[in-house]
Amino acid sequence: MNAYFDHNATTRIDEAVLDTMMPFLREAYGNASSRHDDGTRARQAVELAREQVAALVGAQPSQVVFVSGGTEANNMFVKGMAAYLKPAQIAVSAIEHPCVMKSAASLVRSGWKLRKLGVDTNGVLDPADLDMALREPTTIVSVMLANNETGVLQPVAEVAKRARAANAWMHTDAVQCAGKLPIDFDSLGVHALTLSAHKMYGPKGAGALVVDKRLPIKPLIDGGGHEHGLRSGTENVPAIVGFGAACELAGRRMQLLAEQSARLRDLIETGLVESGAIVFGVSSARLPNTSYFSFENIDGESLVIELNKAGFSVASGSACSSTSTEPSSTLLAMGVEPDLARGAVRVSLGADNTEQQARDFLTAVTQVVARFRRMTAVAV
Amino acid sequence: MNAYFDHNATTRIDEAVLDTMMPFLREAYGNASSRHDDGTRARQAVELAREQVAALVGAQPSQVVFVSGGTEANNMFVKGMAAYLKPAQIAVSAIEHPCVMKSAASLVRSGWKLRKLGVDTNGVLDPADLDMALREPTTIVSVMLANNETGVLQPVAEVAKRARAANAWMHTDAVQCAGKLPIDFDSLGVHALTLSAHKMYGPKGAGALVVDKRLPIKPLIDGGGHEHGLRSGTENVPAIVGFGAACELAGRRMQLLAEQSARLRDLIETGLVESGAIVFGVSSARLPNTSYFSFENIDGESLVIELNKAGFSVASGSACSSTSTEPSSTLLAMGVEPDLARGAVRVSLGADNTEQQARDFLTAVTQVVARFRRMTAVAV
Repeated sequence: MNAYFDHNATTRIDEAVLDTMMPFLREAYGNASSRHDDGTRARQAVELAREQVAALVGAQPSQVVFVSGGTEANNMFVKGMAAYLKPAQIAVSAIEHPCVMKSAASLVRSGWKLRKLGVDTNGVLDPADLDMALREPTTIVSVMLANNETGVLQPVAEVAKRARAANAWMHTDAVQCAGKLPIDFDSLGVHALTLSAHKMYGPKGAGALVVDKRLPIKPLIDGGGHEHGLRSGTENVPAIVGFGAACELAGRRMQLLAEQSARLRDLIETGLVESGAIVFGVSSARLPNTSYFSFENIDGESLVIELNKAGFSVASGSACSSTSTEPSSTLLAMGVEPDLARGAVRVSLGADNTEQQARDFLTAVTQVVARFRRMTAVAV
Repeated sequence: MNAYFDHNATTRIDEAVLDTMMPFLREAYGNASSRHDDGTRARQAVELAREQVAALVGAQPSQVVFVSGGTEANNMFVKGMAAYLKPAQIAVSAIEHPCVMKSAASLVRSGWKLRKLGVDTNGVLDPADLDMALREPTTIVSVMLANNETGVLQPVAEVAKRARAANAWMHTDAVQCAGKLPIDFDSLGVHALTLSAHKMYGPKGAGALVVDKRLPIKPLIDGGGHEHGLRSGTENVPAIVGFGAACELAGRRMQLLAEQSARLRDLIETGLVESGAIVFGVSSARLPNTSYFSFENIDGESLVIELNKAGFSVASGSACSSTSTEPSSTLLAMGVEPDLARGAVRVSLGADNTEQQARDFLTAVTQVVARFRRMTAVAV
């Protein structure tokens, strides 16, 4: 069993969360739209979960639209808004997850103009670039709250203020931030916000688009009219129940978890830097659990494979595009040289990680890197 | 605990299926796209499930695209095909599930013409109406394999033959038929076929669009490029594993289950007719588990509520549009009078139902109907 350092890819369902789900995987299996007792029990569970999800981000339950996950929520926002609006400019940060970026790119053939907002060398969105972009008629803006690779936090509240002033609809993908740092829908000033259960110790198969109720959005998935017509399809009751429980848990333990993760993250980064690693976004405000680094002239993919053999699950680039061998577009946007970017490895810590694992990891990295260096020396 | 007679709405996860899922809800929680052992274990489980799903419908594993459920698969087909084709006519049966019907209707504003194919009084698609429709340029045809309300089987192979001759792409929503009667992708002659796990003793949150690989379809949900780029988003591994196990189980026990359901269904229908019920689609080839009936001058919704009090979970109209009080569009398409259609109640049997439950149900129906009749008599 590997030590699991890949929590930004997915997390283990918390045991207490799974306990909450189990009755809905067994005897309480009704369809939440059914008008008999089996349906009513499912419906009540879904509505409780809606309250729990809303509470985590300071929203009203009626603002929560349950979907199958973060990718669907992001597609729903971008495509659903575009379907209601006249083609104009859509502005997204250059470091968005592919599900935002590709959704935005898909609008181009309907006459939309896609503007990618640059980031600085620290991985933070550049406000000057935003101001320039907003000189053109822009009706949709989407900027993530925390980047999935670097963990770098983005100035979403500031972006939202400017987007609103320019009469644009503002969205943030908060998938990586939720459960790690506090989120408040109203303070952010966004019109829509994406969450995913499995990134925060809930189950795969549930996510939400939290919306300002004035949002003129067209559903991506039509049918029986579930979720007030915004997302049809039989509710995934066990997953939604788990999502709610995970939000409730996150609210309770977030601070402790953040402190614990940051301590291990700092321990690991200190060791990595001593071994010659370059850590990306290190001088920016970041998620407490994420470290993204390269060793010069060592391929990230190879490092991930060797670390796996040594008993550690880490990621190269983002797990969501791990079938690709292109260097990380996030790092390229930060001005990192392609060769160094190809070396990128991500460690993302979670609730079960221990100091011992962190120390063992550093030992393993040092050994693997030394081996690579010897091989390179021989080859030269 | 009610006797559950609403299996067309959703089913209980089979215990053996749930056992197969449990490791993936607990320790084997990796992201199937991750390149470490945790990811590999998840990936292998997803690919095994893909083989199991393909085997149930006589397709190749590479034809299976996993999605969140039947509603998504139907949206994906209709909207994904339309996105690749020049606007023309889309022909769907008048009795399609809302997720097909509304997806088709959503194309109208992009210049598509929606043609609803009529059914006869027995609830079967009318081939003459199809021939008439195909005189106009038609590029998409979708006809369900079995209707969710009446259970009546549709002549999909015959429709597919004619659709292909007219150079249209042919889809069938097989959600209600799968696990109840054998399905063979090639014999049906369709280009795409929809399945849903939770209708066949698998979990909510997994479904598939089984596709002819030449199908020119645009993804509904873009992002990390999962499912060969056709459906992005972290795979819902536990649900997909359960879906595969449910397909494997269905293949083994389908015949036995069909015989058992048909026996109970016939017992119930005989009793219902004796009590004065009108059974819809009774003279057509139907699913073995479904009975759809009305008592004249008795509201279906009220009957469902009273039967629930008496301990039976049944549906009025289709559960998926149970928030609506409109009479069933399926029954209206069959020429049933609106008043009689408003009385419609659906019994859909499943693996756990017993003869005793069926007999108790008949007793309960007789009592409830007699009570309604007395109330009506007093009121008059």
